[in-house]
Amino acid sequence: MIELAINSKSREELIDITSEVEDIVVKKGWNNGILHIYTPHTTAAITINENADYTVKEDIIKFLSKLVPSNFPFMHLEGNSDAHLKSSIIGCSENIIVEEGRLVLGTWQGVFFCEFDGPRRRKVYLKFISG
Amino acid sequence: MIELAINSKSREELIDITSEVEDIVVKKGWNNGILHIYTPHTTAAITINENADYTVKEDIIKFLSKLVPSNFPFMHLEGNSDAHLKSSIIGCSENIIVEEGRLVLGTWQGVFFCEFDGPRRRKVYLKFISG
Amino acid sequence: MIELAINSKSREELIDITSEVEDIVVKKGWNNGILHIYTPHTTAAITINENADYTVKEDIIKFLSKLVPSNFPFMHLEGNSDAHLKSSIIGCSENIIVEEGRLVLGTWQGVFFCEFDGPRRRKVYLKFISG
Repeated sequence: MIELAINSKSREELIDITSEVEDIVVKKGWNNGILHIYTPHTTAAITINENADYTVKEDIIKFLSKLVPSNFPFMHLEGNSDAHLKSSIIGCSENIIVEEGRLVLGTWQGVFFCEFDGPRRRKVYLKFISG
Repeated sequence: MIELAINSKSREELIDITSEVEDIVVKKGWNNGILHIYTPHTTAAITINENADYTVKEDIIKFLSKLVPSNFPFMHLEGNSDAHLKSSIIGCSENIIVEEGRLVLGTWQGVFFCEFDGPRRRKVYLKFISG
Repeated sequence: MIELAINSKSREELIDITSEVEDIVVKKGWNNGILHIYTPHTTAAITINENADYTVKEDIIKFLSKLVPSNFPFMHLEGNSDAHLKSSIIGCSENIIVEEGRLVLGTWQGVFFCEFDGPRRRKVYLKFISG
């Protein structure tokens, strides 16, 4: 298992980690299998979406904030229940196929760490299963 | 594959299955790999979120019921289309890394079975892939 | 890795790919492990839900269109930001256990390719990890 460190700079943002993940796949010589990308936080998530046009990640953040309003009458007293909800809706992990030593992503796909309650120092775990 | 039996007690509830899953990992001697946690139902889901403060799971249930209202003009005649929607939004499985014989969960993370159309007798499957 | 070709016929539709996936599991002799089902598109998704009554898939499409309105003030200029959002909410992959040469699906579960910005020619990747 490899651990990535991420420093988010806003309360809510999508951080493109595609290159960093690709570099580790190459460096570790992971050749053929499944790469599991996991964040151990309950107010963050991992998603795969377009990273060519930066407006897509902006739209995702903006729309999720409308979808899960922070002023909903939540019980949890820390004021970040919206972030917990977004984490469960988007999900804390993704799996990507690795073939011939490279991530099999679509033309427009990138991997994003989703910060919903930053800024904070965060972690992402990578686990490769060959097969 | 290991099968867990779960008895939900309400129409909608999050049931913490972390300890039960951890016990099986130890008992089976699963050491290093990925644990796939899957529910074979179309009106239930699996999620990972905070299990330290019980209000988080209450907020998730309450917010999802506002997000997917049962009185939306659904076509499906069984009256549980809201539960089908929640199942696809949250997802019916999660993967967790296993290292040195233990689940690699974050400090605040627990694994929840999400009941959206109970009370019922339900199942969760655990499949370990070493690597 | 096996690639399936899918031709969607509407802007938004759920296409049941269960039989096609099951046929490949049999044909390839995949016996015991995890099947990873992945779509390399950023305006599509994979979900598992009821395929016995067709109204469930209709309700999923109809409700998601209400949940993520296409007239939200998105920044992305291609007019398909709603589809990108749905892709991240539903997720671009699913994992299913394979035992004794068959997909371990629940009684009512089927696997769907979710088109959110069609009609288009699309792809789904299948990767099997034995274990």
